[in-house]
Amino acid sequence: MKIILILGAGLSSTSMIRYFLDLAPEKNWKIRIGDLNVRSATQKIGGNPFGEAFSFDVYDDLSRIREIRQSDIVVSMLPAKMHYLVALTCIELGKDLVTASYVSPELKSLDSLAKEKNVILMNECGVDPGIDHMSAVQMIKKIRDAGGIITAFESSTGGLVAPGYENNPWQYKFTWNPRNVVLSGKDGARFLHNGKFKYIPYHKLFQRIETIQVPELGEFEVYGNRDSLTYRETYGLHDLQTMFRGTIRRPGFCEAWDIFVQLGATDDSYIMEETENMTNREFINSFMAYRVDIPVEQKLAAYLHFKEDSAMMDRLKWLGIFENRKIGIPNLTPAKVLQHILEQKWRLEPDDKDMIVMQHQFDFMLKGIHRKRYSTLVFVGEDSEHTAMSITVGYTVAIVTKILLEREIPHKGVLLPIIPEIYNPVLDELKKYGIAFIEEEITID
Amino acid sequence: MKIILILGAGLSSTSMIRYFLDLAPEKNWKIRIGDLNVRSATQKIGGNPFGEAFSFDVYDDLSRIREIRQSDIVVSMLPAKMHYLVALTCIELGKDLVTASYVSPELKSLDSLAKEKNVILMNECGVDPGIDHMSAVQMIKKIRDAGGIITAFESSTGGLVAPGYENNPWQYKFTWNPRNVVLSGKDGARFLHNGKFKYIPYHKLFQRIETIQVPELGEFEVYGNRDSLTYRETYGLHDLQTMFRGTIRRPGFCEAWDIFVQLGATDDSYIMEETENMTNREFINSFMAYRVDIPVEQKLAAYLHFKEDSAMMDRLKWLGIFENRKIGIPNLTPAKVLQHILEQKWRLEPDDKDMIVMQHQFDFMLKGIHRKRYSTLVFVGEDSEHTAMSITVGYTVAIVTKILLEREIPHKGVLLPIIPEIYNPVLDELKKYGIAFIEEEITID
Repeated sequence: MKIILILGAGLSSTSMIRYFLDLAPEKNWKIRIGDLNVRSATQKIGGNPFGEAFSFDVYDDLSRIREIRQSDIVVSMLPAKMHYLVALTCIELGKDLVTASYVSPELKSLDSLAKEKNVILMNECGVDPGIDHMSAVQMIKKIRDAGGIITAFESSTGGLVAPGYENNPWQYKFTWNPRNVVLSGKDGARFLHNGKFKYIPYHKLFQRIETIQVPELGEFEVYGNRDSLTYRETYGLHDLQTMFRGTIRRPGFCEAWDIFVQLGATDDSYIMEETENMTNREFINSFMAYRVDIPVEQKLAAYLHFKEDSAMMDRLKWLGIFENRKIGIPNLTPAKVLQHILEQKWRLEPDDKDMIVMQHQFDFMLKGIHRKRYSTLVFVGEDSEHTAMSITVGYTVAIVTKILLEREIPHKGVLLPIIPEIYNPVLDELKKYGIAFIEEEITID
Repeated sequence: MKIILILGAGLSSTSMIRYFLDLAPEKNWKIRIGDLNVRSATQKIGGNPFGEAFSFDVYDDLSRIREIRQSDIVVSMLPAKMHYLVALTCIELGKDLVTASYVSPELKSLDSLAKEKNVILMNECGVDPGIDHMSAVQMIKKIRDAGGIITAFESSTGGLVAPGYENNPWQYKFTWNPRNVVLSGKDGARFLHNGKFKYIPYHKLFQRIETIQVPELGEFEVYGNRDSLTYRETYGLHDLQTMFRGTIRRPGFCEAWDIFVQLGATDDSYIMEETENMTNREFINSFMAYRVDIPVEQKLAAYLHFKEDSAMMDRLKWLGIFENRKIGIPNLTPAKVLQHILEQKWRLEPDDKDMIVMQHQFDFMLKGIHRKRYSTLVFVGEDSEHTAMSITVGYTVAIVTKILLEREIPHKGVLLPIIPEIYNPVLDELKKYGIAFIEEEITID
């Protein structure tokens, strides 16, 4: 019997735990699930005899060491800052670790130590980062093996509500961590366009958008996602002329979201005064100059140059930002006030379904012909518990874990899932669950 | 004989050292000046027998302890982050410390320890912060003692070139630390206007400016300076309806500087690619979308909505930002590239004079009448060495130091110069050097 240790039983673990429990009888696995909140772990196991819940505090050295020692492999779904401590103990005890988080510089520094101990620390095994890496690298290899020379690579991902459930003026609801959505784009974007390095600051990010076409779903908007330049290295695409990563939203979202960015309402760097007594309307007004001769709505439209009678204003009004409703919580940053207001409106209802959309675009030269390949994933969730986000992240982490348990991987240390021994079987198995890319290729004159 | 220990002999210490050396014979002082660069300290002493230069590294514990132990009082003109270490040693050895820097939370935490040891850690003794505090608090007391109730307080300061030397399209040159000028405003502004808290993010700061009138000099622009709200506490103005602090520039500056803010050219959070091979023109172009059909100048004007044939464009062109001149330095942030470009143009020439402008505006009710008092300081420097900035900062620090050496102050711990025992004699003595405020009062209908 093999013991799989799962640390963290939050929202993001739901579908992953189902996957492990479904396979446990056949594979002879025991799934031990630790969380500060043991009830959350117990609930997710739902009486399945192959699962065991226990109370877990990552900062309790004795229990962390005991649990990791007893296990055959460790999956950390804890907040990313806690991975370092878990990784240290894994290295010490010779256990492999899987996470869905970006590799932090701190974790990266454990590479040689992990190699020395023959341990794998496998990260970025979710959807973005995760499936994006695996599908991109697989396609890049395919194009190159056929003799193609890649000149441009653009890749975008979005967590959205599924068609039929986008029933509000924003066509958007929170399908994942609301705080990450409010702070999305903070670092601006850095990318490569036709051989030129390009930099977009946060306050221009939602104005300088691109559009993409998704088969059967139509047009979407894309805004730049952090530093695309580091991916040249990761993907082995050093001589690329264009390299861009983006985040996908439905049309009209970016223009309206930009209002909050321009106001400064997404700032998370300071505590506002007296947020407990502030109303939504006062919150919005606090980012504009003092004047009492015109209503806040009119002042906002004049300040940020849009029409009062517009789809933009409809979106803003629908959120309730002009209402005299109290925030009622002290000591909040602007970003946290905004999140509080949005959470009342962008809530995923129990019957709502979410959707993951991912699209890669590869420009390449093959036998003297300029070609463009589109590789698109659309995956709709089951319900508000087994969301598309939860399934794509959870199954990917779980399948990577299964592979590490069952096969010998010829690499050690801090890894990403960009080695064929990982991405080929993972992408193959994901297809069985309907998580599959549709390919399209055109010739460009 | 008393020993005054000066740590740091950079630009900001020039006039302060002159003040101390001038008074040393009469006062029986010895002035010991330590700097990493001992030549800089030696130069500033210029053979004066009352001064002694020595090589000083703040991180060398033995020499720091030895020097502070030998001294009667310590003045730290080192970078602000080094004050904490100096302050700790001062507390240990029972010596008072004077700085011109803002009190950091770290330094603030030493308050009770300093009080315990009967030590004064006196900060914010320059011009802004420094003279602004002292003159404001003195005037506030004067108005209140006469029975006035203050409803609004606005205070602005600027380091500028003096009239006759503003001979470029920006009417601006670096008269102080260029890096601070490039990063100025980064934290946005927070203030109080007619009882409403107002917040301006960095990317709107240079668009939402005010204007002030300075006697004999005319109109200036003012942009918000950080968190004005904390000053309610400092100045004892808890029931104020309006409280604003600003930074002064000549007309047209803010609109043009905003171009760099909007582009993202003042970002200091990441290293740009290949700055060693980049030209000024490529630097500016890297913040705009890729297109090769129009020149960079035209693209910029279209992107940021100004006319190509305008004073704005003249200012930008004069800086050389469109020239094909190489930056030639690797691994720079955008802010550092911009600083490098500006330093070639905004250099204070040897014959140039600089100027400090400070204006307080107090609105108050006195015997049922609404009055407004303007309190304005204009001080022109001697030359490019003894600048207005160097003299106002240096003399203020020096006079505070003299007072602490000669009189018993009934307060201990981490202090600001807002106690009458300090600000009255300091402001009196500054007048002798021409550093004086002009008062004006009007009645508002």
